Amino acid sequence: MAEKVNVCIVGSGNWGSAIAKIVGANAAALPEFEERVTMFVYEEMIDGKKLTEIINETHENVKYLKGHKLPTNVVAVPDLVEAAKNADILIFVVPHQFIPNFCKQLLGKIKPNAIAISLIKGFDKAEGGGIDLISHIITRHLKIPCAVLMGANLANEVAEGNFCETTIGCTDKKYGKVLRDLFQANHFRVVVVEDAEAVEVCGALKNIVACGAGFVDGLKLGDNTKAAVIRLGLMEMIRFVDVFYPGSKLSTFFESCGVADLITTCYGGRNRRVSEAFVTSGKTIEDLEKEMLNGQKLQGPPTAEEVNYMLKNKGLEDKFPLFTAIHKICTNQLKPKDLIDCIRNHPEHM
Amino acid sequence: MAEKVNVCIVGSGNWGSAIAKIVGANAAALPEFEERVTMFVYEEMIDGKKLTEIINETHENVKYLKGHKLPTNVVAVPDLVEAAKNADILIFVVPHQFIPNFCKQLLGKIKPNAIAISLIKGFDKAEGGGIDLISHIITRHLKIPCAVLMGANLANEVAEGNFCETTIGCTDKKYGKVLRDLFQANHFRVVVVEDAEAVEVCGALKNIVACGAGFVDGLKLGDNTKAAVIRLGLMEMIRFVDVFYPGSKLSTFFESCGVADLITTCYGGRNRRVSEAFVTSGKTIEDLEKEMLNGQKLQGPPTAEEVNYMLKNKGLEDKFPLFTAIHKICTNQLKPKDLIDCIRNHPEHM
Repeated sequence: MAEKVNVCIVGSGNWGSAIAKIVGANAAALPEFEERVTMFVYEEMIDGKKLTEIINETHENVKYLKGHKLPTNVVAVPDLVEAAKNADILIFVVPHQFIPNFCKQLLGKIKPNAIAISLIKGFDKAEGGGIDLISHIITRHLKIPCAVLMGANLANEVAEGNFCETTIGCTDKKYGKVLRDLFQANHFRVVVVEDAEAVEVCGALKNIVACGAGFVDGLKLGDNTKAAVIRLGLMEMIRFVDVFYPGSKLSTFFESCGVADLITTCYGGRNRRVSEAFVTSGKTIEDLEKEMLNGQKLQGPPTAEEVNYMLKNKGLEDKFPLFTAIHKICTNQLKPKDLIDCIRNHPEHM
Repeated sequence: MAEKVNVCIVGSGNWGSAIAKIVGANAAALPEFEERVTMFVYEEMIDGKKLTEIINETHENVKYLKGHKLPTNVVAVPDLVEAAKNADILIFVVPHQFIPNFCKQLLGKIKPNAIAISLIKGFDKAEGGGIDLISHIITRHLKIPCAVLMGANLANEVAEGNFCETTIGCTDKKYGKVLRDLFQANHFRVVVVEDAEAVEVCGALKNIVACGAGFVDGLKLGDNTKAAVIRLGLMEMIRFVDVFYPGSKLSTFFESCGVADLITTCYGGRNRRVSEAFVTSGKTIEDLEKEMLNGQKLQGPPTAEEVNYMLKNKGLEDKFPLFTAIHKICTNQLKPKDLIDCIRNHPEHM
C-alpha cells in the first residue's frame, strides 16, 4: 500500500452514503489515510442538476440520504474508473447485480495491490444454480483480496449516529487493522474476525430465517414458536457454513453479523413483514412485493431457492428441514401451516 | 431407580400445571414410568372447595391453568412429603423462595436414589451476597443430583400445545435419557446438554439483559442499538459463566435456554416492558411494579444487584460494563441515557 492509504467508495445509495459519513471522517482524522475520499456516484439529474455536483457543493446526498451532511473530503465522482484508479482500499456498496459489470470496467485500471471490502448483503446466483458470494466475484474478477463488513446496521440509524456494532470478516490478518481504523467510530464498533465467508453467508441466510419468523407471526403461533424457529434457523446457518464453507469458528455466529443481525431481521425486517402478510392475506409473494415494497424484491425467497438447489445437489434437504420447508412454502409446494410439522423432528433434537 | 420410575411434580402454578400436561401424558404412555404422577398442590379453598379436590375430580387447575384438562393420572396431593415419598424423579416448579423450606421438609423422607430437576427460573441470594443456584440448594439440602430445564417456554403457550424447544442441563449423562423421555412431546422438543450450571445461569442473567433492552426501547435508540445491547448482553452472559461456573461449552448458549430465551425475554418479557416505562415515565421501578405488575417483583434488577456484588468482589466490573451499567441505572446511580456511553468501549470491541 502507498504511504497514505487512498480510499474509494463504490456506491452512493442509502448505505453507501451512511458509511461515507464514517469513512470520510476517519480519513480526515487519521494520519494513515489520504484525506480525500472518492465516492463513485451513478450520475442522475435531480431538479435539473447533476447529483455529483449537488453532493460536491452541498455535501448532501439529497436523493439517498437526505438531511445528513457528508464530510467535505468525500468527493463525488461520476466516472467509476476515475474514482477507483488511485484507491488502495475499494469499498463496494452497490446492489449486488451491478458487481460483475463494475468489476469488468475496473479490471486492469486499479492498483494491483489494492484490497476490496464488500458491504453488500446478499449474494449472486452462480452459473447453473447455487450461491456465488459477492466477495468471491470481486476477487475472481479483479484478482485482489476482498473482505466483508456485515452487521445489524440499518443505514438510517447508522447515519443518525445511533450506537451499533458491525463485523469485518477478513481472511488475511494483515489487513485487519487498517480496515478497522477506516470503519470504527465512537458509535460504530467494529470486531474483526478471520471467517470472512461465514460473515458474508450469514448476511444472506438470515433472510431465509426471517421468512420463517414471518410465517410464525402470520400463523399467530406465539413467542415460544418464533424463538424456536429463529434458533433452529441459526443452527441451520451454522450447519450450512460448516458444509459449504468449512473451517469457521462457532464464535463468529455470536458476532453482530450473526445473532444480532438475525434478531433484528426476524423482528423488524421486510422479509418477515411480507411473509407474515403471505400467510394472513393468501396473496402471492409477487403480488405482495408489488403492494408492500413498491416493486422491490424480497431476498429471502430467492436465497431459499438457491440454498435449496445446493442442498438438493448434496442430498442434504432433510438435514436442513427449516430452510427446505421455507423454500417449499415460498414456492407453494407446501402450505404455511405445514411449517411446524417439518421441523418437529429436527436433527438438532435427535 | 425402581423398575417403574415414579414421578412427583412439586408445584402446581401456571408452569407446573402446563408441564403436568406433558409429564402426565408421557408417564401414562411410556412403559418405563409408573402411570400415577403425584403433584404437590398447596391447598387453597376455591369457592368453598379444596383445590386438590377440584383438580382430582375435574382434572383442571381452575386457579392457575384454567381451561386446560390435566391427564387423569396426575393426582393432586396436599401433603408435600406424601406426594414426594415414592418419587424417583422430583420435578421442582415452585417460586424459588419456597425451595429451602421445602427441602427441609423433604430431607430424609425421600428415596435416597431419587433425582431432582428444577424448572425454576431465577436464583436465590447467597448468604452474604451473590447468586445461589436453585439446583445447588436442592443438591446441598437433599443430597441428590439436580438437573435443570430451561428454555423459551411461556407456560400458556406450552399448555396450548404450540411448538417450542427446551433445554435440559444434566451433569450426569446417565440420567439424560429418562429425563428427556419424561419431558419430550411432539410440540415440546428437548435437547439435553451436560452444562447444567450454564443452562440455569442463562435463565437468571437474561433478565438483566432484558432491562437493558427495555432502556434502549424507552430511549428510542432503534433496532441497531437494541441488537447490539442484546448481543453484548449475551457475550457478558457467556463471560460470566466462564468466570464463575467455568468449563461450559460455547454451543450451550445456542440452545433454547440461551439465545432463544434471551430473544423472547428482550422482546416480549416484563423486565423489558417495565424498564421501558422506567425511562419514559421517570417513575421508580418499585412504583412501576405496583402499577404494572400488580405488586409482583421484577427479576432483572435484583439479579443485576447480586451479579454486581459478585463482579465487584472479583474486581471485574469493567469487564462487564453492560451488567454494571444496568445495575447502576436500576439503583439510580446512573441515568438511563448514560447506558450507551458505558458500553462504547466494551471489551468485546478491543
